[in-house]
Amino acid sequence: MPKPRILSGTRPTGRMHLGNYVGALANWVRLQDEYESFCFVADWHSLTTAYDGRTDLRDSSVQVAIDYLAAGLDPERTTIFVQSSVPEHAELHLLFSMMTPLGWLERVPSYKEMQENLDRDINTYGFLGYPVLQAADILIYKADAVPVGEDQVAHVELVREIARRFNRLYGTVFPEPRSLLTATPKLAGTDGRKMSKSYGNTIAMGDPPETVRRAFMTMMTDPARKRRTDAGNPDRCPVFGFHKVFSGTETVAEVDQGCRTAGIGCVDCKKWLFESHQGTFAPIYERRVQYEKNTGQVVDVLREGAARARGVAGETMGAVREAMKI
Amino acid sequence: MPKPRILSGTRPTGRMHLGNYVGALANWVRLQDEYESFCFVADWHSLTTAYDGRTDLRDSSVQVAIDYLAAGLDPERTTIFVQSSVPEHAELHLLFSMMTPLGWLERVPSYKEMQENLDRDINTYGFLGYPVLQAADILIYKADAVPVGEDQVAHVELVREIARRFNRLYGTVFPEPRSLLTATPKLAGTDGRKMSKSYGNTIAMGDPPETVRRAFMTMMTDPARKRRTDAGNPDRCPVFGFHKVFSGTETVAEVDQGCRTAGIGCVDCKKWLFESHQGTFAPIYERRVQYEKNTGQVVDVLREGAARARGVAGETMGAVREAMKI
Repeated sequence: MPKPRILSGTRPTGRMHLGNYVGALANWVRLQDEYESFCFVADWHSLTTAYDGRTDLRDSSVQVAIDYLAAGLDPERTTIFVQSSVPEHAELHLLFSMMTPLGWLERVPSYKEMQENLDRDINTYGFLGYPVLQAADILIYKADAVPVGEDQVAHVELVREIARRFNRLYGTVFPEPRSLLTATPKLAGTDGRKMSKSYGNTIAMGDPPETVRRAFMTMMTDPARKRRTDAGNPDRCPVFGFHKVFSGTETVAEVDQGCRTAGIGCVDCKKWLFESHQGTFAPIYERRVQYEKNTGQVVDVLREGAARARGVAGETMGAVREAMKI
Repeated sequence: MPKPRILSGTRPTGRMHLGNYVGALANWVRLQDEYESFCFVADWHSLTTAYDGRTDLRDSSVQVAIDYLAAGLDPERTTIFVQSSVPEHAELHLLFSMMTPLGWLERVPSYKEMQENLDRDINTYGFLGYPVLQAADILIYKADAVPVGEDQVAHVELVREIARRFNRLYGTVFPEPRSLLTATPKLAGTDGRKMSKSYGNTIAMGDPPETVRRAFMTMMTDPARKRRTDAGNPDRCPVFGFHKVFSGTETVAEVDQGCRTAGIGCVDCKKWLFESHQGTFAPIYERRVQYEKNTGQVVDVLREGAARARGVAGETMGAVREAMKI
């Protein structure tokens, strides 16, 4: 029996950070054994919120692909490609647009929320329609499942609705992909707020050790622990959140205990964290440096991935055109 | 100096009728000498108002292409192709969608009007966005002008706005196409209302002579002229409208005079009309019959047209991707 297929992807809005890694990418790396995996760089999607031409999407896309590869996505097991190099996505998006009621899009929970939160004017046709593009991205590979966080479940539900509507109108072409929910930890940023590029509080996956060390050292801690001799509350300290993700249970227990009793200072705690971080990220950093030196190899991976993806996408589009009698 | 380029097209919602011919197609045939002409069958556009899968778009598209050819569009001078065979339109549509404000689309005069007048539910994302698809259709060929009627001028204005916005954001790639307004006559239908497929009052361009004769013979005339001996008012008679389009000035004068004085009856008037009609449409009908017998030839014309169109569209998309750094 063939493995079930999954599709995942991220927008190339800059280098991926630790929050992206633990919240998504690390999970995709784990899933590539159990699933037939497709993972793309969603460059067209970046345009839904940033169409001003100030980002070099080609360069950002290669950088995200390097993050994928450095994190351990393996081109042999995961088809890695850039969305715009598979133009079939755009064709399926157009066809889906014809049968997607406006109301479905206006009701997407994140729609109004994102509009209110962003400082730019994104009241565009494409921004309203990005769930239609997502549906095309996923359904063109007939993905069985999509690894997502809680906040994306509503999007996958819309993808299922679009698949159902197509199948009912034209005959069954698409499976209804399910949400593959994995409990992934959320990381705070260096300022204690959610780690997010828009807050400028991120640590990039590929930051050199010295940069990470400095970021940890200046990172916010429990505000109530003002002096070395004050006891701290780890539950109020974002550094402790990092320990829970990157350190072993023993270290976590030691930190918890040491902080509450003022047995260790914040500097000690952060040094330990840096060591734990390096356990995971030193090899990722090394790989990243190698790929950076050899972007030609990354471009080759993306080219081969695109060819494989186009093979599958082209087959689906053949079935779609046949079903729609186009 | 190269000839300026125009783009025209129609939706394959059935065979083209006399109203389509005199209002558009006859004009396109005239323009192909003066302009470098592209003429497409807008099959994807049909889906904006009819996505229920009940139309065989492939067959309808070939039928419309036969109408084009029978009317005198010459594949040597006009690139004739089906929209969906140039998938680059879908890609450009997607990119334009990212930079087109929703408000521009909601303000298109025909948007609310068409929604109110159609009996089907067309409150879809694609229906709202069809002017964006039109912009892609036109701009991908860098058309200098678009032959349109008065009611389409607002659409061309929107195309110009999208071209300007793109050029401002990413650097100049597109010319701003102008409306090529030609005064074309409007034909009434056989029931005196506007000729339209949705009223079922059309005469198809390719109808056999006997069908046309019968349609004329049962066509509505001036309702006040009840008896042969009553004088009529040609200005209130749809048949006279046809004479003005298809008959020579001499016949038109004779009909006008004969009707007002009851010198001729409606049957005479209609016989003359049929003769005039045949002057234009007998050869069109003959050509249509030949193409109908040899649809392989039509498919070849469309294939060659698509290849030529893709050449131009591909070049434009290269410039677009370069400008947007995708």
